Amino acid sequence: MTSKEVPYKIYLTENEMPRQWYNLRADMKEKPDPMLNPATGKPITFEELRPIFCDECAAQELDHTTPYIDIPAEIVNFYRMYRPSPVVRAYCLEQALGTPAKIYYKYEGTNTSGSHKLNSAAPQAYYAKQQGLKGLTTETGAGQWGTALSMAAAYFDIPLQVYMVKVSAEQKPHRKAVMETFGASVISSPSQTTAVGRKILEENPGTTGSLGCAISEAVEVAAGTEGYRYVLGSVLDHVVMHQSIIGLEAKAALDKYGEYPDVIIGCAGGGSNLGGLIAPYMRDKLQGKASPHFIAVEPMSCPSLSRGKYAYDFGDTGCITPLMRMYTLGAHFIPSPNHAGGLRYHGMSPIISKLYHDGFLDEARGVEQTKVFDAAKVFIKHEGILPAPESAHAIKVAIDEALKCKETGEEKTILFGLTGTGFFDMTAYMKHNSGEMSDYIPTDADLEKGFSKLPKVPGIQE
Amino acid sequence: MTSKEVPYKIYLTENEMPRQWYNLRADMKEKPDPMLNPATGKPITFEELRPIFCDECAAQELDHTTPYIDIPAEIVNFYRMYRPSPVVRAYCLEQALGTPAKIYYKYEGTNTSGSHKLNSAAPQAYYAKQQGLKGLTTETGAGQWGTALSMAAAYFDIPLQVYMVKVSAEQKPHRKAVMETFGASVISSPSQTTAVGRKILEENPGTTGSLGCAISEAVEVAAGTEGYRYVLGSVLDHVVMHQSIIGLEAKAALDKYGEYPDVIIGCAGGGSNLGGLIAPYMRDKLQGKASPHFIAVEPMSCPSLSRGKYAYDFGDTGCITPLMRMYTLGAHFIPSPNHAGGLRYHGMSPIISKLYHDGFLDEARGVEQTKVFDAAKVFIKHEGILPAPESAHAIKVAIDEALKCKETGEEKTILFGLTGTGFFDMTAYMKHNSGEMSDYIPTDADLEKGFSKLPKVPGIQE
Repeated sequence: MTSKEVPYKIYLTENEMPRQWYNLRADMKEKPDPMLNPATGKPITFEELRPIFCDECAAQELDHTTPYIDIPAEIVNFYRMYRPSPVVRAYCLEQALGTPAKIYYKYEGTNTSGSHKLNSAAPQAYYAKQQGLKGLTTETGAGQWGTALSMAAAYFDIPLQVYMVKVSAEQKPHRKAVMETFGASVISSPSQTTAVGRKILEENPGTTGSLGCAISEAVEVAAGTEGYRYVLGSVLDHVVMHQSIIGLEAKAALDKYGEYPDVIIGCAGGGSNLGGLIAPYMRDKLQGKASPHFIAVEPMSCPSLSRGKYAYDFGDTGCITPLMRMYTLGAHFIPSPNHAGGLRYHGMSPIISKLYHDGFLDEARGVEQTKVFDAAKVFIKHEGILPAPESAHAIKVAIDEALKCKETGEEKTILFGLTGTGFFDMTAYMKHNSGEMSDYIPTDADLEKGFSKLPKVPGIQE
Repeated sequence: MTSKEVPYKIYLTENEMPRQWYNLRADMKEKPDPMLNPATGKPITFEELRPIFCDECAAQELDHTTPYIDIPAEIVNFYRMYRPSPVVRAYCLEQALGTPAKIYYKYEGTNTSGSHKLNSAAPQAYYAKQQGLKGLTTETGAGQWGTALSMAAAYFDIPLQVYMVKVSAEQKPHRKAVMETFGASVISSPSQTTAVGRKILEENPGTTGSLGCAISEAVEVAAGTEGYRYVLGSVLDHVVMHQSIIGLEAKAALDKYGEYPDVIIGCAGGGSNLGGLIAPYMRDKLQGKASPHFIAVEPMSCPSLSRGKYAYDFGDTGCITPLMRMYTLGAHFIPSPNHAGGLRYHGMSPIISKLYHDGFLDEARGVEQTKVFDAAKVFIKHEGILPAPESAHAIKVAIDEALKCKETGEEKTILFGLTGTGFFDMTAYMKHNSGEMSDYIPTDADLEKGFSKLPKVPGIQE
């Protein structure tokens, strides 16, 4: 029960901002399967990860037991520039829909990079600088991660090379310019600057690129350049953990008003936003204290969780990363070029994958992009926020759930993650405005192609 | 003296948000000179304004005496979607500059339209809807105003036509797309849709357009279309009054921490942001209670306040609006095409003009755009916000003032207005990144051309 009137936006004070990240794995009785070394088929070690990731991130990646990890003061101070972010009560949307449901969203778009990605960019840049590294490499697709990391790298004063998926770099020159304005060097991927890039270009000269391919290039450069390390904006366990600040803040804010969500909805590409948002509520579920209904929303055109295989796979197209057990469409999967937004990664966070496989994450729902943009337009009109296409996936399902409540009369409390703004996605909005946007749903045969190339792991995956 | 530690961001609660706008004119012993009817040379009446503006805005425009005007509940609710906006303590910037000064900025860029313009867009759309009007017309230059009004018009459900300065529409297709996504109809100006547009195109076929020209077109359409009215995003007294919420919130937030600024800095195009930011502090000065140093910052390429004439002039290039006494470069002034940002209006708010003329507004400072972008880059790195070029004018002077304090050792408290984000200004940033940006300072002879065409007003201005 709500004890006092909920404002439009619930802000925690800076003192109430969490000082620790929450590591979901610590409360999972069944842990995610370990990362494997593809050469040996054995669990990867800290020493094996060190050449790729900075030491602290490598350690966090392998830590399945520590429930709470302190956020260093320098990162707390960085967070204070834009956090705590608000939990918004969507009063205007509720009214427009005529639903008895209460709709809340955790809004991560108020920082200048425009998305939640900054939450992990800051620690990754900070730890690398602390370790005395000389530079970082990364990949970016829609550009949110590259922007966030450029901002964090500028602040913590460490050089950065961003491999940007070619189709995005071409469609979003201004997104590229933002990264360059922050001082990053941006290269379209696949490129001639790496062996893997040259190989992919040779095999497929007309390729528009993919996240998996950009990852391969960034990892190759990091592994081959003295003092450089690679950073990733999603998928990995330590990234999901950094993003737990989203959920921890959301829960603290809602707790103040006696609100506990019945349904929690997040868009899922690599899974870091979803994993971060649900973290403290999933803790309740893992501990048997509560049982909210969790929904992961993904594009029908890139349905890793809802139609993928739960298998060991590479994180990249070039097949040079460790193997992770996750829901995957296969490392060679590339979404159709008409796919307008992000959420285009072939795999899914191992933590999210495990929780889904074990039934703790209740539902994975694929949605068509035209419907997603329709929902975005409703939201834009009534809530005055122009969402990123990624975020609009969660909006679409939140609206659907609220309309179900209208039919049934249930006064459910819905919480969804609004991960960012869509200012750099106007090409996609223009397509939708002009009616030229279309949908693409891969056939089973399309997906089978990807599955057929899953790696063999002796004794584990034949 | 500061009694407690100031957080990075000072947020008022929604209950602390002002429920009234403040009308600066009520506290001015010498009122701004009245608007004149250009045909008669006599002060304009409510009845004469009604065909152009909605009734409530016309009444507010002519109200020189009511100090506080209630904000209707519907507008308060709209404001609650994004207000109160934070006052940010620029700890990181201070540290980077090594200044003993305390730097605060009132940040208006957290709403989805990205700027302070929304503060007046909401009431103007609301009052028009309340009056039962059928639609609105307006103009936009850099696009912030058009975006804000599109958002407010969508929310309050009233059709909108936006005349967008041609050069901006061409340089910023995505800005145009945002307005269209909110449902507005956007026309490049000058256009063939109006008599004044056709005339201007005939006289100067290669024109890139100007705000003054776009205003003429929007006013012509509003005046000639049943049930339509015109709305303006700056300059006018009622717009400055709506923007007082910026200053009222800033002062309430700083008062909480016992902070009173020594220097208050705002960028000035039409003057609404500056007028809004300084409003409650100017009240103190007008009442002899305090004497902060006020600085209006404008581009050297469009120096209406620092080099303009204080004279009666038209608000538009087509010379169809009432006459306003203001600092002006002449209604036919068009900034050099290399001018990258907004702040390109030929005139200046009559209130701001009067305060400057009478010495209450202490200083008008012109700055070169290359220096403005240099300052923006410093800010981006340390404060993690990519500012609009307009806002960066204030940043430039705030940094200059903070560096002066470093020299003198003075611990001044500086407050400036950060009016919005620069995501739609990446073309300008790209120019600066590549070193292709240049400056333009009009000669006295250049300015004389504009002054020579100032209108004659019998008995007042010969």
